[in-house]
Amino acid sequence: MRQSQMFIPTLRETPQDAESLSHRLMLKAGMIKQMASGIYTYLPITRLVLHNIEKIVREEMNKIGGVEIHMPVLHPKELWEESGRWDAYGNELMRMNDRHGREFALGPTHEEMIVALLRDELRSYKKLPLTLFQIQTKFRDELRPRYGLLRGREFIMKDAYSFHTDDASLTKTYNDMYQAYENIFSRMGLNYRAVEADSGAIGGSHTHEFMALADIGEDTIAYTEESDYAANIEKAECQPVEKSADAEKELEKVETPGVTTCQSLADHLEIPLHETTKTMVVKINGEFLMILVRGDQELNDVKVKSFFNAEEEIEFATEEEIVQHFNATPGSLGPVNTEIPVYLDYQVDAMVNYPTGANETGHHYINVNHTRDFEVRGTGDFRFINEGETAPDGSGPVKFMKGIEVGQVFKLGTKYSESMGLNVLDENGRSVPVMMGCYGVGVSRTLSAIIESHHDERGIIWPKSVTPFDVHIITANTKDETILNAAEELYESLQEKYRVLYDDRNERAGVKFADSDLIGLPYRIVVGRGAKDGVVEVKRRTDEKSTDVDIADVLKFIDEN
Amino acid sequence: MRQSQMFIPTLRETPQDAESLSHRLMLKAGMIKQMASGIYTYLPITRLVLHNIEKIVREEMNKIGGVEIHMPVLHPKELWEESGRWDAYGNELMRMNDRHGREFALGPTHEEMIVALLRDELRSYKKLPLTLFQIQTKFRDELRPRYGLLRGREFIMKDAYSFHTDDASLTKTYNDMYQAYENIFSRMGLNYRAVEADSGAIGGSHTHEFMALADIGEDTIAYTEESDYAANIEKAECQPVEKSADAEKELEKVETPGVTTCQSLADHLEIPLHETTKTMVVKINGEFLMILVRGDQELNDVKVKSFFNAEEEIEFATEEEIVQHFNATPGSLGPVNTEIPVYLDYQVDAMVNYPTGANETGHHYINVNHTRDFEVRGTGDFRFINEGETAPDGSGPVKFMKGIEVGQVFKLGTKYSESMGLNVLDENGRSVPVMMGCYGVGVSRTLSAIIESHHDERGIIWPKSVTPFDVHIITANTKDETILNAAEELYESLQEKYRVLYDDRNERAGVKFADSDLIGLPYRIVVGRGAKDGVVEVKRRTDEKSTDVDIADVLKFIDEN
Repeated sequence: MRQSQMFIPTLRETPQDAESLSHRLMLKAGMIKQMASGIYTYLPITRLVLHNIEKIVREEMNKIGGVEIHMPVLHPKELWEESGRWDAYGNELMRMNDRHGREFALGPTHEEMIVALLRDELRSYKKLPLTLFQIQTKFRDELRPRYGLLRGREFIMKDAYSFHTDDASLTKTYNDMYQAYENIFSRMGLNYRAVEADSGAIGGSHTHEFMALADIGEDTIAYTEESDYAANIEKAECQPVEKSADAEKELEKVETPGVTTCQSLADHLEIPLHETTKTMVVKINGEFLMILVRGDQELNDVKVKSFFNAEEEIEFATEEEIVQHFNATPGSLGPVNTEIPVYLDYQVDAMVNYPTGANETGHHYINVNHTRDFEVRGTGDFRFINEGETAPDGSGPVKFMKGIEVGQVFKLGTKYSESMGLNVLDENGRSVPVMMGCYGVGVSRTLSAIIESHHDERGIIWPKSVTPFDVHIITANTKDETILNAAEELYESLQEKYRVLYDDRNERAGVKFADSDLIGLPYRIVVGRGAKDGVVEVKRRTDEKSTDVDIADVLKFIDEN
Repeated sequence: MRQSQMFIPTLRETPQDAESLSHRLMLKAGMIKQMASGIYTYLPITRLVLHNIEKIVREEMNKIGGVEIHMPVLHPKELWEESGRWDAYGNELMRMNDRHGREFALGPTHEEMIVALLRDELRSYKKLPLTLFQIQTKFRDELRPRYGLLRGREFIMKDAYSFHTDDASLTKTYNDMYQAYENIFSRMGLNYRAVEADSGAIGGSHTHEFMALADIGEDTIAYTEESDYAANIEKAECQPVEKSADAEKELEKVETPGVTTCQSLADHLEIPLHETTKTMVVKINGEFLMILVRGDQELNDVKVKSFFNAEEEIEFATEEEIVQHFNATPGSLGPVNTEIPVYLDYQVDAMVNYPTGANETGHHYINVNHTRDFEVRGTGDFRFINEGETAPDGSGPVKFMKGIEVGQVFKLGTKYSESMGLNVLDENGRSVPVMMGCYGVGVSRTLSAIIESHHDERGIIWPKSVTPFDVHIITANTKDETILNAAEELYESLQEKYRVLYDDRNERAGVKFADSDLIGLPYRIVVGRGAKDGVVEVKRRTDEKSTDVDIADVLKFIDEN
């Protein structure tokens, strides 16, 4: 492709309002143009890279028997009412009315659509298992779109759905899909980890996220270097702790004027922070509960929600509710003498003789011991894991890293089949709900993740598997006939084997070099003064210096380097 | 691909509610599933064919220097207000509000979007010409969606836009695009004609439609067999006629009781219908005009609109307005003694001594002659051409046929550049509006058009260029080990060169044969009893009978047939 015919509006200045590195580089390299908040036009370079990503995804889906379809953007409201998500999805679901006043959603995901499609067509278990996928534009009305294509409102996803009569078949496809995702992200040169994740609002019991490592990542991942263990920090399990063997001391109420935090309590009592406790009052399924974690730990609301099978997000009791209920301020709460059910984090369950609030402002108990001083309704893992703790698989100490979610695999079970009536007759002629899995890859988001991890201070460094072109030919001087002829010949001959971008623009050499580094193709060939001696300068994007190569040997050089 | 893993829900019955042949066949062959009125899921066979169509379109666009981009579905209202189309587009434009109450259109076409994209990026004529295209889902809220993918509300289009500083450059790209479209539709095996068309509401001066011939077509095309002349009947020009040499007779008013139509006037006066005239009162740009056409002809409102450069659709005066203005009923109107400007169709301009209404109910004039009896404000081509008339290029008599519009090329000129401010500096440093062309191919609609012209009573007959698979292997009996092994081997070996669908389902042979005819792949191979002697039955979809071929020779047979 001649660059004069392309449309690559590179920028000289670094855009200041772009918060992430990939966003800045995509703007600077002329890859995207924002048309409205979180809504972008993909310019030619981006379109080419997306085709390459889509091709890899398609190949890996086909390899495991996935069949491609294409479902609509517009989803009738009635389908989303059947699943209960028309209301539950909230403001992120984009909605519109047609000319007759019928309501539609702009699909952010297609569970409802595909269940509606299949419930009319599937009759018998004999048609299963079945895996369908599509690559398609999705819509989500993010409250705060940001980071360019990392969190947009209109984006491209691959979504796949599998259908089964039994869990063994679902597990097989789940594992195939997991492997396909490993192939996809490896082929794209992403540094990623598959992590255990919380199944969240979508429902279902088992899920992994594929996280590309990047500083801009919005998720924290706990992993170890000693094994392949990795989990989203929301999910990473903390182990039960061995109970302290100390003898129980006598319960005592002490004055703690002005003590409102665990740190001030520790200071006041002259004990370490980790010997204090923190009492939280939360509302779950409409009921107040008390949960105690150690003073140096944070309550993990995702774990709490999961422990209690809560349908909605965990709410903390407001200060008003606490004062009304306990006649004490939040810093003075505790489990002694309360009617509210009390739950302990494993760490607190292992403690003896600890301080808690006395439900009386300015007072705490010390030497509290559960069972003796208050009834325990349950114990569990309610906190975030910390760096240095032993991983749940026992392999070694946990480390943290940041990641961008580029894919997710999910065992949905029968959540949608049951609510929307997707049944088949099994081998015994009984009607059974179909088991489902769903599997997503953020296609446009993956492109950003690739740039986040493949760049230097001068621009992008495309992995060969997704690069928009293989070779960039640059003429150092467009007025010199010898140079022009050599460049044209090289352009023609290299095109037989490689995808070539030929910078034939009438621009200064410095501009061309800067653009070439920004665009980041694997090989750069500069046709300059050496052309009269049959020599050009070849440089890999990752090299610091270029190599003089005889024009006749350029193809061989590229083949071999 | 194994058919057991595919999803091709064929039907035994012909769906009664589908009005067009392609719609019926696509439903019957398990290619589409309607999710809401005019909104379809494309099932696997359709997805494969669309990929093939898209590949052909992409190749031909690249060949003429077109560069692919991808613009958003969601268009900010502000852009459509700039062009004036937010209001003008009416109910067919789908609209929505985001969570912040901002209004968006769901793009039916992308002129506004691409102009907004380029006006920030183009500065100089040096970046032109430029041709950008995309293949994308579009939305149009059709009042009456019908014919399956032929008139849907969510559909796939290729739209291209070109940018120029002068008309010569625009004309060159227009001609390149015209040629690319001929290549595209020829490669797909479509029987099509490029026809002159009216430029309609989109604005612009020059346009051709590419019409695939089909009985279901909603457009009528006038063409000749003697040349490549073809035009939409809305546009096909009628030539001026030589003036009658008869002497003018004396004007006379006659009583015509009960005469309200041209036919009844002809009967009453005992003259042929074509010697009568018809007076129409129309409202154009807010003003009433009178137009006379011959009694046997129909007024062509598209030509009238174009003649008068009318901005809105032509309105006929209502009976109420006519009675109020003329104190006569519509059947008695005429040009004598009126203040309204009078225009004549070329045919009437050539007549002498003709009858017209007398603007008095139950009365007509006879022997009317223009200029003598009333003032003529203008003459023009205001009627539809008829079969048998000489074509405008003089090549021969005109014939009619029905067509489906599958593509359109358009010289837009500066309509959008001027209203939205897309300017560049020309060679002299002056700011000039950019000239534009726009070029569309209905991708999903083309698929329907292909089926409309490639089928028989048993099902679809795919052209090789777009077929979802090349070869269909069918086992006549899935219990027979010899047959199964032969089929598996053939499946493996043919896949090295061809795309193979292997019907490995445990179904009756009759069901498989019927499905195979419906799906319509170019070659069918039946592995049956002959397998034990190393022989299979091979049949092209277009053949009536199959041929026994040695398994070892199957590849050769397909290569050569």
